[in-house]
Amino acid sequence: MINLNLSNLGDFLTNEELENMMNEAKSAQKKVYDKSGDGSDYLGWVDYPFSYDKEELSRVKKAATTIARSSDVLVVAGIGGSYLGAKAVISALTPYFEKPGLEIIFAGNTISSTYMSNLKDYLWDKDFSVNVISKSGTTTETAIAFRILFNMLKKKYMKEELLEHVFVTTDKEKGALKQIADEYEFETFVVPSDMGGRYSVLSAVGLLPIACAGIDIDKILKGAQAVYNDLKKDDNIAQKYAAVRNILYKKGYDIEILEAYEPSLVNFNEWWKQLFGESEGKELKGIFPASCIFSTDLHSMGQYIQEGRRNLFETVMEIKEPKCNIDIPFDKNNLDNLNYLSGKDLNYVNNTALEATIFAHKEGGVPEIKLEIDELDEFHIGYLVYFFEMSCAISGYILGINPFNQPGVEAYKSKMFEMLGKPKK
Amino acid sequence: MINLNLSNLGDFLTNEELENMMNEAKSAQKKVYDKSGDGSDYLGWVDYPFSYDKEELSRVKKAATTIARSSDVLVVAGIGGSYLGAKAVISALTPYFEKPGLEIIFAGNTISSTYMSNLKDYLWDKDFSVNVISKSGTTTETAIAFRILFNMLKKKYMKEELLEHVFVTTDKEKGALKQIADEYEFETFVVPSDMGGRYSVLSAVGLLPIACAGIDIDKILKGAQAVYNDLKKDDNIAQKYAAVRNILYKKGYDIEILEAYEPSLVNFNEWWKQLFGESEGKELKGIFPASCIFSTDLHSMGQYIQEGRRNLFETVMEIKEPKCNIDIPFDKNNLDNLNYLSGKDLNYVNNTALEATIFAHKEGGVPEIKLEIDELDEFHIGYLVYFFEMSCAISGYILGINPFNQPGVEAYKSKMFEMLGKPKK
Repeated sequence: MINLNLSNLGDFLTNEELENMMNEAKSAQKKVYDKSGDGSDYLGWVDYPFSYDKEELSRVKKAATTIARSSDVLVVAGIGGSYLGAKAVISALTPYFEKPGLEIIFAGNTISSTYMSNLKDYLWDKDFSVNVISKSGTTTETAIAFRILFNMLKKKYMKEELLEHVFVTTDKEKGALKQIADEYEFETFVVPSDMGGRYSVLSAVGLLPIACAGIDIDKILKGAQAVYNDLKKDDNIAQKYAAVRNILYKKGYDIEILEAYEPSLVNFNEWWKQLFGESEGKELKGIFPASCIFSTDLHSMGQYIQEGRRNLFETVMEIKEPKCNIDIPFDKNNLDNLNYLSGKDLNYVNNTALEATIFAHKEGGVPEIKLEIDELDEFHIGYLVYFFEMSCAISGYILGINPFNQPGVEAYKSKMFEMLGKPKK
Repeated sequence: MINLNLSNLGDFLTNEELENMMNEAKSAQKKVYDKSGDGSDYLGWVDYPFSYDKEELSRVKKAATTIARSSDVLVVAGIGGSYLGAKAVISALTPYFEKPGLEIIFAGNTISSTYMSNLKDYLWDKDFSVNVISKSGTTTETAIAFRILFNMLKKKYMKEELLEHVFVTTDKEKGALKQIADEYEFETFVVPSDMGGRYSVLSAVGLLPIACAGIDIDKILKGAQAVYNDLKKDDNIAQKYAAVRNILYKKGYDIEILEAYEPSLVNFNEWWKQLFGESEGKELKGIFPASCIFSTDLHSMGQYIQEGRRNLFETVMEIKEPKCNIDIPFDKNNLDNLNYLSGKDLNYVNNTALEATIFAHKEGGVPEIKLEIDELDEFHIGYLVYFFEMSCAISGYILGINPFNQPGVEAYKSKMFEMLGKPKK
């Protein structure tokens, strides 16, 4: 399914270092299962691949069908963990140009007046629905967008029609969105109270938008179930990945670049940046997470990686079988000197670029971790998501921080509310 | 036009440090004008806002008109500096959803077989043109894409029709693309031989795709001319920006995050990452360039920035007047508690978020540089582009490296050619 290849780390760590850190990783994972570590109120994601609410999942699928029937566009209003997971999975699993079915637009994650204004113009003559996602319902970015979009919907549709156009994902019992949903009798889905936003993509938070994009969410959950079982064994890939990154961090490698050779993974990398950055970046610690798409960014960030400061390491995702492949044609003139590749397929060239880059960067002094993934489908995405979630929990515990809180996110909000004159409760 | 606000740096550097480094910055800029520094063969961009080829510029505009008439889609085939600048400017200056006129698609910057295959499917029933951009014409990513696209075009159009569908931007005299263009009599534009890719956006490399997107390229050049004159004076903002980032770098701040509160600038930040990363990341030196779009990414990278390792600083771009604005409506129920903002406009809230974030991050120990930009239009983009180019040249000379070469980019290519069995010349 997914293999963690550590063969390009030889010079950067010793077997003894790895063995010692693997012991820490095992203890850390035990804390996750035992709920004996910091932040153990937020471990709902651990058993979720099996313990999820089956009734809710079938309502998710039904809602996706309703939206596909009622709408041209679904606007997903949410910020941070309330949209990054869905956006990651939808980008990874849908075609580049012509998307089948419903158009999905993400909003409520910016306060840009131009974005919101352009969105209003775009939607005015279209049938659209909104899936608003926020635990409290008062997240500023999302609440502003929802107020504007809901106003549009109320002008566009009769009250009873709204039931097919507004879907609310929020706290099970309380909060502003829950109140609005109750008043209008909108269908609601749950932001689980024991799951932080960045660990919530496999709940209704992620699965409703993903299902609306025509993706088989059962297969995603199957991938999560498979990795759940695989990670129950010791010496698993999550422990190894967490151990290696902590060894490298201790040696001064404090920037990690997640890399893919498939542009559709660019949003997956953004999801990963939140997962690791928000989990580990605290108490003046943490690996700084960055993202590259190769070979594209070899022509922008490649120079730095090859010859800049030696404080970074790379985690490379290799997709063995592409969704589509294409041969390089023969050309009798051969002015571009490419005939040596004619008859070869593009994926062969792409994966050769990957191997060559790992070789070149390792020679340049960059530790290389490789994740080998058979193919980029629903199952493997589910597998990857949960793999990274568990790796992040283990890694955070090794680092000695609480990987499930995000106290620093409040700082800009408090100051902003003060400046905006928000009334105190 | 554009102001560099350094008032949030008080605790992180002294006036004396700034004065000393400003002397280095002045000497560095003198080297740029004198052509007395390393890489002085690549200073064609310096006088370009005035010295550009006027005849070529008028052909660029004419070609844009031809393409708009002949095609639904323009495919821009290029990698690194051959597409990042155009993509940056087009994203920044066109609306979010419905783009006027021609659709612009970037290709030739990836070897993804799925991307290329999906692109072929998308184009098959459309009229399209290709602007292929490569100095040598043998850049692997771009050459493969062009071979495939050119094959499609040859099946779609008669030979004489091809003249309205293929536009070649390459070396003035030699190389594979120049030969192809000559054979088919395609119109050609020049990749200036004295300008690296990352400094080439204001040449035909960037301006043809930008003009095809319906953007007024004369206004962009006017902005570049204005900043060219502004930077002729000492104590200018390019010297200051270069000086400050070198002081911070010496103090251990080795990650710089460029930030915007407008999502359409996401590709501008990618262009900037190439400019600075490829210029400075060498000889085991250089600030690692990263990008955030706020407030969006405050809910992903915000935690790290607020409380993670204190080795980063932020350069924040503030756009004072947005392209479109929108008021937050009143709601009589006020369940979302947003009525304290009703009647206020979104841009006010967005810029308040910016000020609050600068305050919060500074309190958290992050040095803050602010670039104040009146508005996001052609003129200011031209101004910004050249400002960053000059800043980067100055900054690189202060750092003691050649800001105009990229020797490290060859490493992955050599290994890849070896693995692919490319014949040696």
